[in-house]
Amino acid sequence: MYAIDLNSDLGESYGAYKMGRDEQIIPLVSSANVACGFHAGDPTIMAKTAALCKDAGVCIGAHPGYPDLQGFGRRNMNVSPADVKNLILYQVGALDAFCKSAGIELRHVKPHGALYNMAAKDAALSRAICEGIQEFNPRLILLGLSGSEMLRQAAVIGLPCAAEVFADRAYEDDGTLVARTKPGAMIQDEDEAVRRVIGMIKNHTVTSITGKTIEICPDSVCVHGDSEKALLFVKKIRAALAAEGIAVKPLPEILNVG
Amino acid sequence: MYAIDLNSDLGESYGAYKMGRDEQIIPLVSSANVACGFHAGDPTIMAKTAALCKDAGVCIGAHPGYPDLQGFGRRNMNVSPADVKNLILYQVGALDAFCKSAGIELRHVKPHGALYNMAAKDAALSRAICEGIQEFNPRLILLGLSGSEMLRQAAVIGLPCAAEVFADRAYEDDGTLVARTKPGAMIQDEDEAVRRVIGMIKNHTVTSITGKTIEICPDSVCVHGDSEKALLFVKKIRAALAAEGIAVKPLPEILNVG
Amino acid sequence: MYAIDLNSDLGESYGAYKMGRDEQIIPLVSSANVACGFHAGDPTIMAKTAALCKDAGVCIGAHPGYPDLQGFGRRNMNVSPADVKNLILYQVGALDAFCKSAGIELRHVKPHGALYNMAAKDAALSRAICEGIQEFNPRLILLGLSGSEMLRQAAVIGLPCAAEVFADRAYEDDGTLVARTKPGAMIQDEDEAVRRVIGMIKNHTVTSITGKTIEICPDSVCVHGDSEKALLFVKKIRAALAAEGIAVKPLPEILNVG
Amino acid sequence: MYAIDLNSDLGESYGAYKMGRDEQIIPLVSSANVACGFHAGDPTIMAKTAALCKDAGVCIGAHPGYPDLQGFGRRNMNVSPADVKNLILYQVGALDAFCKSAGIELRHVKPHGALYNMAAKDAALSRAICEGIQEFNPRLILLGLSGSEMLRQAAVIGLPCAAEVFADRAYEDDGTLVARTKPGAMIQDEDEAVRRVIGMIKNHTVTSITGKTIEICPDSVCVHGDSEKALLFVKKIRAALAAEGIAVKPLPEILNVG
Repeated sequence: MYAIDLNSDLGESYGAYKMGRDEQIIPLVSSANVACGFHAGDPTIMAKTAALCKDAGVCIGAHPGYPDLQGFGRRNMNVSPADVKNLILYQVGALDAFCKSAGIELRHVKPHGALYNMAAKDAALSRAICEGIQEFNPRLILLGLSGSEMLRQAAVIGLPCAAEVFADRAYEDDGTLVARTKPGAMIQDEDEAVRRVIGMIKNHTVTSITGKTIEICPDSVCVHGDSEKALLFVKKIRAALAAEGIAVKPLPEILNVG
Repeated sequence: MYAIDLNSDLGESYGAYKMGRDEQIIPLVSSANVACGFHAGDPTIMAKTAALCKDAGVCIGAHPGYPDLQGFGRRNMNVSPADVKNLILYQVGALDAFCKSAGIELRHVKPHGALYNMAAKDAALSRAICEGIQEFNPRLILLGLSGSEMLRQAAVIGLPCAAEVFADRAYEDDGTLVARTKPGAMIQDEDEAVRRVIGMIKNHTVTSITGKTIEICPDSVCVHGDSEKALLFVKKIRAALAAEGIAVKPLPEILNVG
Repeated sequence: MYAIDLNSDLGESYGAYKMGRDEQIIPLVSSANVACGFHAGDPTIMAKTAALCKDAGVCIGAHPGYPDLQGFGRRNMNVSPADVKNLILYQVGALDAFCKSAGIELRHVKPHGALYNMAAKDAALSRAICEGIQEFNPRLILLGLSGSEMLRQAAVIGLPCAAEVFADRAYEDDGTLVARTKPGAMIQDEDEAVRRVIGMIKNHTVTSITGKTIEICPDSVCVHGDSEKALLFVKKIRAALAAEGIAVKPLPEILNVG
Repeated sequence: MYAIDLNSDLGESYGAYKMGRDEQIIPLVSSANVACGFHAGDPTIMAKTAALCKDAGVCIGAHPGYPDLQGFGRRNMNVSPADVKNLILYQVGALDAFCKSAGIELRHVKPHGALYNMAAKDAALSRAICEGIQEFNPRLILLGLSGSEMLRQAAVIGLPCAAEVFADRAYEDDGTLVARTKPGAMIQDEDEAVRRVIGMIKNHTVTSITGKTIEICPDSVCVHGDSEKALLFVKKIRAALAAEGIAVKPLPEILNVG
């Protein structure tokens, strides 16, 4: 029996600024990664998003990022591992408070943007992230890039972890993402994107940008909910998964740590 | 057997900016109110301060404030009660993460600065603060101004609460603090300040600014640790308390909710 | 020959957050009030907005606010007049740099949100704002609420000033705005709103909420550009002004200080 | 006749946080680099610092940095050149407003911390900084690291520029600073530091870390004012310069662009 988690980045509004279509996307995913106020989100947005997740029965996770609202957490910042561990503790703790208030349990952590990308290739940064999560709650699941240093460091310290893949991104032969700046980095054709995801789930393989068949073993697929087109794609991928007999389940069930 | 808690506002440094003499004051108090990153403090300062409290065996509490680093949380801000509740949840949750990491339990919450002063006279604001605390953890103790609306609202919803008094401030006939802008608001003479505190603890009374004897029943005395003079005053008050047979105990023991 | 300025609040996006339809509204107004990074806007948005104003030949002004991005500058803050003067200098200077870079001259300053509303009734705050503007450039025009303390203080120190009115707001007998919380505060009917504006311009009167005819002498009408409906209303008001022989001119021409 | 500028980073306090001994160091230098609110400083601190410079007759310059108060602008951030140009315009414009208010002319710009260090080796970043300065005021002097890309790009676009050297830092054979992490990076002996500075000024040479004599042609020496020891060193270097017949003059006089 095949199963996969669908995750999406949510709660990215800020004050008077609205971003994303959270009300529409939340019922379509199994895991919500909620911004924690550093690169996006604010206390009131976090409260609302936790309540939406509770109502929809969706698993909630923290989506901590660099303290860079202006850059939406997408600009690399040279923050020391010791400080990164503290950024993680702070943001995960803050979101956990809204989970407690909403009567829902925090289940995972997925670093955001530049922090996610930098940590994917940096053992010390990854270790700091994993230790921060583990010191807060050793049962939390780290959601990180498939094949990344983050997953390796989680394994080293015994933190539960899940591998994330992207339907709309090409992969290098070594299983890393093709940089967005390279031609062919994005999978433009939606049907091909869906086929690739299904292949990853059923065969644990995907075709790399050079045409090689490489191994990949996804626990979760990242989907977007910031436009009508993105929402339609999520519905399309859900329909295709159902047709293939692949269940959509939240991370704790995927990892059997429920 | 008489007993009192001594509390101090701590962890108020920020990044490269140093404030307070935390290493010296922490061993002299029984309760530490730790800034949570909105008006002062940052994740790394919070981690260090939690570790200092753990090492000294001092009870730790959150000291949440308005999101106003430039004004150090001392400027009144017209934040709605609903948003204030979320500010409380966010900051208390963030500090709780560092308590978990340090292996120490969060025990109380004392709002800071303008939030403390505005809530003291505002039932809706006080209710929002108390509800935020209670939704996070109903065993947390609210530390608020003796005779304030904050303590009344805590009582209404059944949140444990403790009454704070100030050694260096004069009181009006109704038990509220004399505004700093009025003549006589500050008790300049240190010996008189100490005598007043001892009177409050032993007799549950203090002389108001008009000369009347009014009732006051303190659970905790606020002391400062930002200068050599302040530290000497704390040592003086501790010596006087000891001489009078008054024990210094943390809030949970004062309230018998340990 | 009748004339009026149409002003709009612009450049309110921030980083990845988009707000307003600046490209569409700028060609429809004669004065643009540009956010300066404290309650909205950031350096790159300010650069883009100044360039848009230059291209459209629209007069540019600064729209400084309280340092409260989360509250969009709409929450009252108890900032001292001395500090407010410095907030004004900082933000006006920052926008002036983008005007210099774009090859356009900064012409006016309109305080934003809570700062605008608090200053309208506070002589010391208004004086501080006016002095900040005057010390930066005594030829700048203060754009403030018709009948407000801001305009009085500008007159006292000899700063050029212009009176702003609102098409969609009701007025009290004393010429102040009816608070948004009161019934009848908003003029819902668009045709009535247009008629009221034309009456203000031609007759220097408007009907107050109690039905009295009161005097009002507008230099500028505030219009919004944040929705399709708002843009249509601006086109409607422009058409009505043209039909009545009322020219739309920027503030310096209205005040004859060009 | 020999001459040199002495510059110092000033106005680095923030709100309730005090940093540096500005009142004491300002009379000892010829150029003040004033923080502009992004990595340090706030509007009220900027107003005070501009007034101090005016009173002391010291030349004032802007000291813009990355938007990272928590990291004091010392953490590398991956901000695009286009956005950096706007950060420069914003901060330089903001400080210029306080110069206008104080009746003093802004004369130079020295980027701060990570921005200074990253630009020193990055042509595109340096070009963006220089263009931002030039678009604001083409007479402003860029103060940058001796031998850096910043000075090269200033020369390319015709922006006046001045070369900064450090008394307490060792140099590589190519004239770049030895990284702080390498042994021998800091010149510990104060007398040697003074001798090195005098040699740079009189002979246009300094001994590199490998023992080679390399060319260096300083316009300005950076001195610190954040401790009693730092202040004593400035007095020592001033006495030595006087004894050697080297005049201390502000940048515009050094460059003859007064």
